[in-house]
Amino acid sequence: SDRYSLLILPGDGIGAEVMAQVTRVIDWFATNRGMSFDVSEDLVGGAAYDKHGTPLADETMAKAQQVDAVLLGAVGGPKYDVLDFSVKPERGLLRLRKEMDLFANLRPAQCFDALADFSSLKRDIVAGLDILIVRELTSGVYFGEPRGIHSDDNNPENEGGRVGINTQRYTSGEIRRVARSAFELAKRRGNKVCSMEKANVMESGILWREEVQWVHDNEYPEVELSHMYADNGAMQLVRNPRQFDVIVTDNLFGDLLSDAAAMLTGSLGMLPSASLGAVMENGRPKAMYEPVHGSAPDIAGQGKANPIACILSFAMALRYSFDQGSAAAELEAAVEKVLADGVRTADLMGPDGGTPVSTSGMGDAILAAL
Amino acid sequence: SDRYSLLILPGDGIGAEVMAQVTRVIDWFATNRGMSFDVSEDLVGGAAYDKHGTPLADETMAKAQQVDAVLLGAVGGPKYDVLDFSVKPERGLLRLRKEMDLFANLRPAQCFDALADFSSLKRDIVAGLDILIVRELTSGVYFGEPRGIHSDDNNPENEGGRVGINTQRYTSGEIRRVARSAFELAKRRGNKVCSMEKANVMESGILWREEVQWVHDNEYPEVELSHMYADNGAMQLVRNPRQFDVIVTDNLFGDLLSDAAAMLTGSLGMLPSASLGAVMENGRPKAMYEPVHGSAPDIAGQGKANPIACILSFAMALRYSFDQGSAAAELEAAVEKVLADGVRTADLMGPDGGTPVSTSGMGDAILAAL
Ligand SMILES: CC(C)[C@H](C(=O)O)[C@@H](O)C(=O)O
Ligand SMILES: CC(C)[C@H](C(=O)O)[C@@H](O)C(=O)O
Repeated sequence: SDRYSLLILPGDGIGAEVMAQVTRVIDWFATNRGMSFDVSEDLVGGAAYDKHGTPLADETMAKAQQVDAVLLGAVGGPKYDVLDFSVKPERGLLRLRKEMDLFANLRPAQCFDALADFSSLKRDIVAGLDILIVRELTSGVYFGEPRGIHSDDNNPENEGGRVGINTQRYTSGEIRRVARSAFELAKRRGNKVCSMEKANVMESGILWREEVQWVHDNEYPEVELSHMYADNGAMQLVRNPRQFDVIVTDNLFGDLLSDAAAMLTGSLGMLPSASLGAVMENGRPKAMYEPVHGSAPDIAGQGKANPIACILSFAMALRYSFDQGSAAAELEAAVEKVLADGVRTADLMGPDGGTPVSTSGMGDAILAAL
Repeated sequence: SDRYSLLILPGDGIGAEVMAQVTRVIDWFATNRGMSFDVSEDLVGGAAYDKHGTPLADETMAKAQQVDAVLLGAVGGPKYDVLDFSVKPERGLLRLRKEMDLFANLRPAQCFDALADFSSLKRDIVAGLDILIVRELTSGVYFGEPRGIHSDDNNPENEGGRVGINTQRYTSGEIRRVARSAFELAKRRGNKVCSMEKANVMESGILWREEVQWVHDNEYPEVELSHMYADNGAMQLVRNPRQFDVIVTDNLFGDLLSDAAAMLTGSLGMLPSASLGAVMENGRPKAMYEPVHGSAPDIAGQGKANPIACILSFAMALRYSFDQGSAAAELEAAVEKVLADGVRTADLMGPDGGTPVSTSGMGDAILAAL
């Protein structure tokens, strides 16, 4: 049967402890569902900087290019705040995204029934929420040139004498390919795409709107498409998030909007993500999977972290990298059952009580439910 | 006594009908509080385009430069969607901001007690909310060069053959002056400023963070300053908005974050804004005041619009342009009383009932409360 190669990059903070639970889940699928995994592990972020002086060593980058899927924990921590921009933990993550050309970042914002009361929004606004944000991940202001901080000394009106520049740059091709991802995904869901930009202010937003419309008209006329200014999008996500099915947007808007959407669900510790690139010869896309939450240095190493977001990221790997949709659904159902049974890591403890468990206790419960 | 000159630009959609109520309020203060206003009126946005072929005529721009304060209704509408970027209604607004150099956009997000249940957020998360977003308004990606859509024909990898570019550009001086506004305002409020950027990804964000910190350390060490990544800011606004007092951020982040913050309050039809520039010889700042809501073409001309945001924008003019803080407070108290009495335009009608009124009916009630 097929072999699936995985590179695990736990990273910093709670990365290692949540990834340890994912490893147990991987073993379970190997043992019980006849799958074969080749798993290797390496460093990224601050952990890589500590060892190699760079947040992603070239050998690690090369390995990431060869595997079917990368599983990443989280990067960053206060210890690394003093580092120069070019070697900050985040640069490791951004290098992976860029060099693997992972242009489509899938961020589901799903409200779990058992946890709907955790949201700061009213239950009737978020219950059953299930939207998917498709964020462009390899271009835009994150990577555009020119960029940098320069001196502006011959401008006497500029108190401080410096200028900071970044460039928002999109090609039509970059927009079209992520639009296609969004339309494809919408077809398997609610068949609706809302594209967000600031075409009223930015020419790059006009291009975005026109190219998304072009892909729609020429290739996906059967999918419902709407356009919305990103500021209104931020409002509408707060006002009535269930109006959306798939949202497609650029790298920077996607960063803010997907975080806002994630927080609507009230369960950040639950949310996975997938970053997908071109389909390779073996039929599998370049891929990286990671939880939406960060490295949470304040609780690292204490067994308090919720491993579910990272485990559900592996479920996304099963679905999108290995075409194992039913195994993914099986894992997702196990997570739902555990939640319905009241099993709770610290971040999920609410007024309704529940059974408190540690990070590995949550792993135990999910394995038992499988 | 002093004379205050005002230029009223009702604009498009519901602009005219909400501004008509503001005019009544202005008259009330003239008659009953011994103030003298020189009021003129002109066109902006689609209305200006219809007459002059441009969303802001040069003569209107010149008038705006001469008055103490501009009161703007709203611009835009579906009729103008087909127009070229350079003459869209929004360009009129952006030209006013840029040429008057209105660098500090003050957007209070305040939750009115009588309306707390309108929020999609739980009452205990938003009750008593009172934050002030100070958005930089004359620079950043809104105005940076180079910008535009170009052909990219000699790049065979770019399907579609075009590229869209905008430039995020900030000078240290531009950052320092808006930071000073934020610190000054914080001193009169909760004495706390949170600055938001993406310094982990954008060099312009690093400059932003450093310059805000510089102004703090050198000029406002007594104000509490924190920094937050803008994506986390979007999350925290949803999770627990009352942690904030004053938020200072750039033009584009401010656009999204202030709209999200406005929507938290559940009463968009209530929220005013002020855009302030340099202080002139007469001691008054260059200034424009406008409601946060848009032109709402769907309900224009039907007497359904809520005039309160526009009336409270005039209250901000009393406070920030004319140093009439107690008159501003008097007007704000009248609005609060009317709300507490259950007087409701259509957008404010909730399950609790209330007395339905038209746009002018709301004006009547506020004048009566004064
Ligand atoms: C860590 C940071 C560089 C990253 C981003 O800005 O993309 C993060 O916020 C995310 O959304 O994955
Ligand atoms: C109308 C538009 C140009 C404007 C902006 O993007 O600044 C609006 O959204 C605002 O926030 O005032």
